[in-house]
Amino acid sequence: MSVYDRLKSLDIVPEAPPSPVGAFVPFVRSGSLLFLSGHIARREGKPWRGRLGGDMTTAQGKEAARAVAIDLIGTLQAGTGDLDRIRRIVKLLVLVNSASDFTEQHLVANGASELLRDVFGDVGAHARSAIGVAQLPFGSCVEIELVAELM
Amino acid sequence: MSVYDRLKSLDIVPEAPPSPVGAFVPFVRSGSLLFLSGHIARREGKPWRGRLGGDMTTAQGKEAARAVAIDLIGTLQAGTGDLDRIRRIVKLLVLVNSASDFTEQHLVANGASELLRDVFGDVGAHARSAIGVAQLPFGSCVEIELVAELM
Amino acid sequence: MSVYDRLKSLDIVPEAPPSPVGAFVPFVRSGSLLFLSGHIARREGKPWRGRLGGDMTTAQGKEAARAVAIDLIGTLQAGTGDLDRIRRIVKLLVLVNSASDFTEQHLVANGASELLRDVFGDVGAHARSAIGVAQLPFGSCVEIELVAELM
Repeated sequence: MSVYDRLKSLDIVPEAPPSPVGAFVPFVRSGSLLFLSGHIARREGKPWRGRLGGDMTTAQGKEAARAVAIDLIGTLQAGTGDLDRIRRIVKLLVLVNSASDFTEQHLVANGASELLRDVFGDVGAHARSAIGVAQLPFGSCVEIELVAELM
Repeated sequence: MSVYDRLKSLDIVPEAPPSPVGAFVPFVRSGSLLFLSGHIARREGKPWRGRLGGDMTTAQGKEAARAVAIDLIGTLQAGTGDLDRIRRIVKLLVLVNSASDFTEQHLVANGASELLRDVFGDVGAHARSAIGVAQLPFGSCVEIELVAELM
Repeated sequence: MSVYDRLKSLDIVPEAPPSPVGAFVPFVRSGSLLFLSGHIARREGKPWRGRLGGDMTTAQGKEAARAVAIDLIGTLQAGTGDLDRIRRIVKLLVLVNSASDFTEQHLVANGASELLRDVFGDVGAHARSAIGVAQLPFGSCVEIELVAELM
């Protein structure tokens, strides 16, 4: 199955990202690497506010991370013109809005990692760091930054 | 206008960075990429202490982020010998010392992003992540890490 | 002295990393760059739990960062097959589980930076960011992500 077949089977339609709020751009290509800006979790087009270990469960955080991954795929589509030109998802930095006693950032991050594996197969096997942060822009619950390698 | 003309018009003189406090270096070049260490905000040569949402306003944080960007340009000058050899500012990681209810990290980060755009023009349009962290070295209010592509 | 001689003199035997807990991999190579996933501090094979400025001193945190660096060297060995193929340790991102008033993340990070310098010599001189975060997976005290350049 191609990447687009897999997206279709998951009922995911990648959409171009909204314009960044700020003096920056959603992605920059340098050589064969494509660097994506941090994408915050959104729900119904608005920031998905919340804190893990506070008003959100790990399962909800995982769902939010999956939603970010879908947005990242939309930006990858915009940045490549063709998702089949991605040779590898290289690295994720997963930032989880965390109460001081929440220690399941890795489980939250799996929401993104598993979707990328399901969509990209071996190409989607990435390095990753998952971190609990004090806050995120707009109070969003998850933010993810991604580096990909292009053909 | 060249980068140096723009710096002059903004009354900015890039200075070589102070030696890092620790067993590391201010920048490393690898291929065409130049990786800069995280630079903390300084004021009058000392760490600019403070916390957004605590003892600092968003406007003050934005000013601090701008000051970090000026220091980053000094390090870029030291790392390249000639700022016109920079093909692209690729990526910023902007870390904002944040109280748990401060959610304007993106506005703080704009202090750096807007200066880089003003100095480098299209070359300065970068990918970015802005994050609220629990603390930073020396209690500084902002820390920024940068990746640039050289010619 | 070669890298392996230095490791021997420090009584360090690099070991292959445990399998990641999650849908990701310990390292990804892209071109000449090797991106390592964030490694959390471990002690006796288990997550090294703790918070700087809380139940851990700076000296203990520095020791934990050194332990992470040893694990990173194990992953570098697994990712290269030969540590002498490393041209440069490019960059560390050092995440320190921090109480809100702990401001010595740079001293904690030196535990990793100094070991890399001792083992790799000039090749080990890296760019670095040190950050205080709200929490880390499994409650670990330190997490470090690394980028290396290969020959």
